[in-house]
Amino acid sequence: MSGSINKVTPKTLPGFMELSPNDQVKFNQMLETIRKSYEKFGFLPLDTPVMELSEVLLAKAGGETEKQIYRFTKGDTDLSLRFDHTVPLAKYVSLYYNELSFPFKRYAIGKVYRGEKAQKGRYREFYQCDVDIIGENELSIINDAQIPSIIYTTFRELGFDNFTICVNNRKILNGLFEHLEISDLSTDILRVIDKIEKIGVDAVKNEISALGVNEIAINKIVEFVSIEGSNDEKLKALNNLGIDGETFKTGVSELSDVVKYIRALGVLDDYFAIDLKIARGLDYYTGTVYETFLNDYRKLGSVCSGGRFDNLAEFYTDKKLPGVGISIGLTRLFYQLNEMNVVKVEKNSIAEVLVIPMDTEISECLEVANKLRCAGINTDVYLDAGKIKKKMKYADKWKIPYVVIIGEEEKNSGVLTLKNMETGEQKKLVVEDIIKEIKL
Amino acid sequence: MSGSINKVTPKTLPGFMELSPNDQVKFNQMLETIRKSYEKFGFLPLDTPVMELSEVLLAKAGGETEKQIYRFTKGDTDLSLRFDHTVPLAKYVSLYYNELSFPFKRYAIGKVYRGEKAQKGRYREFYQCDVDIIGENELSIINDAQIPSIIYTTFRELGFDNFTICVNNRKILNGLFEHLEISDLSTDILRVIDKIEKIGVDAVKNEISALGVNEIAINKIVEFVSIEGSNDEKLKALNNLGIDGETFKTGVSELSDVVKYIRALGVLDDYFAIDLKIARGLDYYTGTVYETFLNDYRKLGSVCSGGRFDNLAEFYTDKKLPGVGISIGLTRLFYQLNEMNVVKVEKNSIAEVLVIPMDTEISECLEVANKLRCAGINTDVYLDAGKIKKKMKYADKWKIPYVVIIGEEEKNSGVLTLKNMETGEQKKLVVEDIIKEIKL
Repeated sequence: MSGSINKVTPKTLPGFMELSPNDQVKFNQMLETIRKSYEKFGFLPLDTPVMELSEVLLAKAGGETEKQIYRFTKGDTDLSLRFDHTVPLAKYVSLYYNELSFPFKRYAIGKVYRGEKAQKGRYREFYQCDVDIIGENELSIINDAQIPSIIYTTFRELGFDNFTICVNNRKILNGLFEHLEISDLSTDILRVIDKIEKIGVDAVKNEISALGVNEIAINKIVEFVSIEGSNDEKLKALNNLGIDGETFKTGVSELSDVVKYIRALGVLDDYFAIDLKIARGLDYYTGTVYETFLNDYRKLGSVCSGGRFDNLAEFYTDKKLPGVGISIGLTRLFYQLNEMNVVKVEKNSIAEVLVIPMDTEISECLEVANKLRCAGINTDVYLDAGKIKKKMKYADKWKIPYVVIIGEEEKNSGVLTLKNMETGEQKKLVVEDIIKEIKL
Repeated sequence: MSGSINKVTPKTLPGFMELSPNDQVKFNQMLETIRKSYEKFGFLPLDTPVMELSEVLLAKAGGETEKQIYRFTKGDTDLSLRFDHTVPLAKYVSLYYNELSFPFKRYAIGKVYRGEKAQKGRYREFYQCDVDIIGENELSIINDAQIPSIIYTTFRELGFDNFTICVNNRKILNGLFEHLEISDLSTDILRVIDKIEKIGVDAVKNEISALGVNEIAINKIVEFVSIEGSNDEKLKALNNLGIDGETFKTGVSELSDVVKYIRALGVLDDYFAIDLKIARGLDYYTGTVYETFLNDYRKLGSVCSGGRFDNLAEFYTDKKLPGVGISIGLTRLFYQLNEMNVVKVEKNSIAEVLVIPMDTEISECLEVANKLRCAGINTDVYLDAGKIKKKMKYADKWKIPYVVIIGEEEKNSGVLTLKNMETGEQKKLVVEDIIKEIKL
């Protein structure tokens, strides 16, 4: 019958991640770890629609972003798929303003869409994992110190120990430019500074010079971004620069507070560092900014970034809603870590044990499986006919760590065979002892 | 500055669920419960793209389904949003056939899209939570018995105790029609029988009669669907009907096996019942079919349905892939239960405790918060300025069960004030005892 049906070649769109089940198990564990870490800080979950009215979603967008949007009509409605979680948050907070309580702390973990040029490791559908704290009119700088604590907890829980959370404050950079009377060039200069690790100091000097900045100012900028030392030494150096403009002083004061409260939250200086070079985004962030680097895998770039913004939802409401937040691009991060074989997870399979009948001992297998499940153990049963070798291969394939074998002898005696698939070790145990052994 | 920006009215599309944070907390718990229940049976996770090539996704679709699809082009590519998890599973299994091991057991929990007429309680974006077991050429009937065990575990874990999993087998109905020599009308008759609870026996008789079925056959059909009694009595009645066609006998034999193995899996007869009336879908299911009813809320209709199908992926591959599965439409179910105020969850908030400074004891609050988090307690800190009343209202608003208050006295003594927000009870405790108290 099926022979008469015209077949369609099954394929998946390029730029859309589709994992093997075992990789999906690993991906889900990373995602769960991030979610639990965000919840540890009391962030509330939000799950906004993937689709919004284009006029709402694109109120602010423009340029590159707008080109990448998945936009279409259904009936008379102009629709777009979300390209981040920030715009939907702005919409949400504006729409439900009166039903919320501030500071409003929410996390969002879900897929977003950008029709970027498809290339290895770049995705058009990808998970973003965001936390944001939104204030009403004001938001204390102490919130900016909570963010590194969240990053710290999250990456520790993800199994990493060698990472650096880089912190800076945009007001320091802006204050410097004010002092040097080159504020009108600040966006351009920041864009150049942002590249310093990639292109080096000399190229940065040349590019800034090309913008029409004089040599004294250029040297001051380079001197500034070259400030080295411990966090306290850097703060001291900033205070000693002799710049007394209001913006600069506010920036240094905010950064000092952030450092102080990060420490109060138990994050050691080993894990965070003032980095005066980072600027993040060119017109969005207004205060503290963050980037996070896995020091063993620097080439990944920042794996968790964000910052402070003055006004979340100015396209929807007159309410002033300052905020601070970060995002982890999980799909890309997982892809990269998995390619390098360094995803750190507790388990590689869902089932902790597979129950196998030697022959026709199905009812016994089902009863044992039920007992294991009732004891909280994820249990698969091989129910279909087949040779024992095929059944063992199934356990191997899905990386199930234990197999329980029930044959005629086991059925009669109640003493079952437990095989550790990694070591090959076999034990003869009653089901209660199997439970204890697996739960060890 | 923001006054000069043209405001866009923030709104959310009709038919797209967007919950309050507290409701989202509840929703997520239901979703997690379902996920954990599916994993308890060893099902592997899959997370296919929300978007597929239209030619792939719509290989089989037609009629009503096709009209509801969100379909659009991006560049030259004809794209559609998935409308269920079954078609993406068919694509996945066909595409990765050689990399899988069968029987392939996967769960899928995620959003699907149908541009249905918007009405209260109907959603255009909704979560479906599916499990399916896919065999290679063959799939033992014992798998059909696992499904009710999964439904049982899931709804027990969701906090329900009074529900009935209805089981039937399409071969019994088809065999009956063969016996009565009205197989050509089977689809039409099934459609009528499907309505028996709604329209009653007499209306069913009339409608079947209108199809041209003679009275003897009509009475046999009604006699058949009226078989009452315990599961064993129903099986006995079926065996005693004197119908000896192959299809009918296979159906009764399969249903007997399903009942036998459901029991072996520890599901009591209180929770499942043979219901000879249910047919589910008119051309998709070929054997066992399931519907699930919450007996205290019958008007919800079936909250978990599914069945056995002969061939999952005939539009993509010549491989024969029989399967059995079920789906829970979580968005609609949550909406209905929440409207009735009967969502059964463990917690109403993410944060278990909110730490509040009376005045300026911020560093102390951060240190205490860090200790609570390290002890595994989800902890929020109120960091912004404000009167104590405003801070307490925040805890109330987000239904946070405990508040820790730190003032001058607490800061000096280390003995903190713990307030139970539900009972109003206050205790003076050191942080270690607060941890014990909250974890109780």
